[in-house]
Amino acid sequence: MTLGRLNHVGVATPSIEASVETYRNLLGATAIGEPFDLPDQGVRVCFVDAPNTQVELIQPLDEASPIAGFLKKSPAGGQHHLCFEVPDIHVAVADLVAKGARVLGAPRIGAHGTPIVFVHPRDFGGLLIELMETPRDGSH
Amino acid sequence: MTLGRLNHVGVATPSIEASVETYRNLLGATAIGEPFDLPDQGVRVCFVDAPNTQVELIQPLDEASPIAGFLKKSPAGGQHHLCFEVPDIHVAVADLVAKGARVLGAPRIGAHGTPIVFVHPRDFGGLLIELMETPRDGSH
Repeated sequence: MTLGRLNHVGVATPSIEASVETYRNLLGATAIGEPFDLPDQGVRVCFVDAPNTQVELIQPLDEASPIAGFLKKSPAGGQHHLCFEVPDIHVAVADLVAKGARVLGAPRIGAHGTPIVFVHPRDFGGLLIELMETPRDGSH
Repeated sequence: MTLGRLNHVGVATPSIEASVETYRNLLGATAIGEPFDLPDQGVRVCFVDAPNTQVELIQPLDEASPIAGFLKKSPAGGQHHLCFEVPDIHVAVADLVAKGARVLGAPRIGAHGTPIVFVHPRDFGGLLIELMETPRDGSH
């Protein structure tokens, strides 16, 4: 495995609408996607484009959402995860498991429509790392 | 101001050496800079290159370092800040101040040799945002 591009930084927020306004007003973000729900993951997400990567704003859909737990500790929101691209999710998972890292669950389809997995923060210096298979159409 | 490229993600760590090994071993990072001290900011830093951006590993130089405080709350380390590039730091600061955002101190020279400032997390959804003037030689 070779370190791939940072597809996005995941940012937890109690309000996508308020966060979008902050990125627009304070930093001049203009390329902002439509928010959409990922019910399987209990979240609503919205991508804000920087020229070289994206910020994924993540709002809990309900109290059972892992993001709801995050916001209990940090009510204003904050950085939640880093997502790096990999060419093949199954190769990446096998590699990580062989090295003793804890991969959280089986690959599932993520916000960009390609398979993703998360690596346990205890195996990555306190950071929650998402690995995402690069979309074949080159979009991100 | 228009949202600029994400120059780097700042990551606090109790040990740059251990973090570098994690990025190398688990994610296959190969482009890893030499660690260096920023004594004015009380930190030692090391940049790990992804194809489109960088991870800035930040280790406290002493107990007075703001990163030491961060690690008291999150001993394993974690995401610390997001750094976006701006063409002119003074224009960016004037714009933010005019919009009522709290800019932390005057611009100072950052890890890439160009002026930086930080924006208060309370004005940015719990995220610590660094703004950094784009290096004129195009390096990053």
